[in-house]
Amino acid sequence: MERHFERELEELKDQLLRMGGRAEAIVLKSVDALRRRDAALANEVFADDKVIDRLEIDIDDRCLRLLALQQPMARDLRFITAALKINNDLERVGDHGVNIAGSALRLTEQPLLKPLVDIPRMAELAGGMLHEALDAFVRHDAETARRICRRDDEVDSLNRQVFRELVSYMVEDPQTITRAMELILVARNLERVADLATNVAEEVVFIAEARVIKHHAEELASDEDFGRG
Amino acid sequence: MERHFERELEELKDQLLRMGGRAEAIVLKSVDALRRRDAALANEVFADDKVIDRLEIDIDDRCLRLLALQQPMARDLRFITAALKINNDLERVGDHGVNIAGSALRLTEQPLLKPLVDIPRMAELAGGMLHEALDAFVRHDAETARRICRRDDEVDSLNRQVFRELVSYMVEDPQTITRAMELILVARNLERVADLATNVAEEVVFIAEARVIKHHAEELASDEDFGRG
Repeated sequence: MERHFERELEELKDQLLRMGGRAEAIVLKSVDALRRRDAALANEVFADDKVIDRLEIDIDDRCLRLLALQQPMARDLRFITAALKINNDLERVGDHGVNIAGSALRLTEQPLLKPLVDIPRMAELAGGMLHEALDAFVRHDAETARRICRRDDEVDSLNRQVFRELVSYMVEDPQTITRAMELILVARNLERVADLATNVAEEVVFIAEARVIKHHAEELASDEDFGRG
Repeated sequence: MERHFERELEELKDQLLRMGGRAEAIVLKSVDALRRRDAALANEVFADDKVIDRLEIDIDDRCLRLLALQQPMARDLRFITAALKINNDLERVGDHGVNIAGSALRLTEQPLLKPLVDIPRMAELAGGMLHEALDAFVRHDAETARRICRRDDEVDSLNRQVFRELVSYMVEDPQTITRAMELILVARNLERVADLATNVAEEVVFIAEARVIKHHAEELASDEDFGRG
């Protein structure tokens, strides 16, 4: 029974990793479709996302079965409830990929607004954060996970910069408005992907240390409850 | 023990309802701040959201304790895992309120771009969906919950309409670009609130019927697994 449970947890982990890999791939593919003005590639993203949706339902179902049949405690319980949340986060990453693919598709019909400002850089950063968060998840590596959370600011600041640049394009040349708008939306989707990667990393810390770090809960606790800070 | 557990579940439900009420209030307040160009009101939203963040952590903690100590089965287990997700959804609603308050604040410094197109209407719809989803949650009312899910399309279509109108403002008068951009972002935040209300409603169906309706899983299952459709 014990060994069976261990194997079930390993399978859950593998399944989440496969889903994470697909979610990351969808984001990179959608930005690639945007960069290469490739409508066929953008269309692939919609089909890829259907697979992610299906995986989400399967993983949820597996988590519930494990909770019901194994009645896990302590770290195993944290692992399974965190898996429920990571599952949800990864599904949302897929949705952001779909949004980006939608923008890519609409933009193939119009002349390219180049350069794509810092969007490819944002995609690389957000994709990298997600990839590393999943690596940290596999290794229960809270230290790496904390480092990932701190990188979220970098993506936020790129997003603000992209926003400012694109608004100034629009003001200078109103003909660029529709295209610049699409790119602003793409940048926001990438910023959300980085947020979701941060959520995953926060869950990794929670699994490893039973410590909540989201909303800066650590500082909140130390300020309010212990009079430090 | 059994009675104690029932009481714990009731308390969890009450806590989620309080959080839901606060999340709904934050959205309405942020749109009110936008409409009335009221910076003080917008600033209140940031403080309100801190309370929601704290509630999220408390509710998560309560759910984990219930899972560990009570080892619930069937509908109780579905209720608690759904509570974990609803908790997360409501916290995100709060974040969207914060985003809207940020736009409201930046817009107080500029002449009003009026009318606010269909934004107040979107806020009313999205807030109403959230309110009713929480009502359905209290009553385990799957029928109402399904009806809420269908209303999401209405908000999506308003969002597209707002987008088109505001882009045409920008094209006609580039001086409106920054302001119109903010309003487009507000509309997208409201559209996301409606999505999150839909998620809550989907969880209500799951609790009541043990049936997954997100991603149109019912149709997927009937097409793929049973050869119908």
